[in-house]
Amino acid sequence: MDENVSNRQLERYPMYLSHLLMLSEAGVVNISAPTIAAALHLNVEQVRKDLQAVSSSEGKPKFGRNVEELIADLKKFLGYNETNKAIVVGVGHLGQAFLNYSGFTRYGLDIVMGFDIDPLIVGSEINGKPIYSLDEIGKYLADSDIKIAVLTTPQGVAQEVSDVLTKNGIRGIWNFTPIHLSHPLNVVVEDMNLASSLAKFSHRLQILLKKEKS
Amino acid sequence: MDENVSNRQLERYPMYLSHLLMLSEAGVVNISAPTIAAALHLNVEQVRKDLQAVSSSEGKPKFGRNVEELIADLKKFLGYNETNKAIVVGVGHLGQAFLNYSGFTRYGLDIVMGFDIDPLIVGSEINGKPIYSLDEIGKYLADSDIKIAVLTTPQGVAQEVSDVLTKNGIRGIWNFTPIHLSHPLNVVVEDMNLASSLAKFSHRLQILLKKEKS
Repeated sequence: MDENVSNRQLERYPMYLSHLLMLSEAGVVNISAPTIAAALHLNVEQVRKDLQAVSSSEGKPKFGRNVEELIADLKKFLGYNETNKAIVVGVGHLGQAFLNYSGFTRYGLDIVMGFDIDPLIVGSEINGKPIYSLDEIGKYLADSDIKIAVLTTPQGVAQEVSDVLTKNGIRGIWNFTPIHLSHPLNVVVEDMNLASSLAKFSHRLQILLKKEKS
Repeated sequence: MDENVSNRQLERYPMYLSHLLMLSEAGVVNISAPTIAAALHLNVEQVRKDLQAVSSSEGKPKFGRNVEELIADLKKFLGYNETNKAIVVGVGHLGQAFLNYSGFTRYGLDIVMGFDIDPLIVGSEINGKPIYSLDEIGKYLADSDIKIAVLTTPQGVAQEVSDVLTKNGIRGIWNFTPIHLSHPLNVVVEDMNLASSLAKFSHRLQILLKKEKS
């Protein structure tokens, strides 16, 4: 596995994979880099470079690459073949949506339980997944192979809860709160900041609509 | 309003705002750039530059900046004072979460209705917000001031639905599907790609855990 791929490059791989899965369903056997590039509005040299970084097999002139082989290579590279168990911490609307959604298993993420502090939720089940009290998280993580948490708490408690998670063996936090978390060096935090995305979005839209008025 | 702020800079403003709102609730009156920088793990010169770009008032030596003024400046800059109506298109788990969540109004986004094609959902209400048939979207958007859509459809229909939206006057699409949408130049698309974020996250975690084993 090439560890030197850039973040931008990494972000494109799921896009290739979803496109190839659609082609596979449609019965397409071979595909060329230019065809992929055209469909996804990407530069063809970029597509070639991206695919070379994850795929051992070369494309054949005139035939292109085999769709199924490419899908297997991408899944392997992205780690989608091995399923990792994960927990959702903070069972509000977003947390509930993640517990209800089973589609993340396609991406190698299997959400197995949730944690919250609300006595009205603790003890219940969502989509067959139990919701436990955050106070008892140690009990459920000890001796488990769970290393990943999806953090969907209110922002005011995000840092505190993050500390609890890392103290209990969580090594990866997919952070949906707008908080910039402090964390040990041996923990990976991936921010998915809805508020920041919305800020960029609103700002760009504001500028566009203002220009039209003037 | 300074239109020349970078995306990275824009992403930090919601972070400043949430931090300042917490300080305000705690009764803090004045705050200095170094204190903000330390709390958010940012470079102090960066914080100074960021705040100068949105705030008319200068910080006073020894006193720092007024928290409430700064909050007002940030809200104005981010457009959080004006509320914009928005629709959710694709009422699956994520779409439902957005309809149920009222917190986006804080960010100037007021989700007023949902659209789907599933007859089991169309005609129902979520959190008091009606769900209409996508086939009838023209009727509901015509003569409305709705310009923003949150796109949460399955990826297979994302482009098709996006085309319907832009044909019916939508000018901003907050895109939660993994599809790279083609769209008219006078439309703003902000991608919030969960699959890409998850790919980056898994990859970084994989590398970290592999290094420890070796």
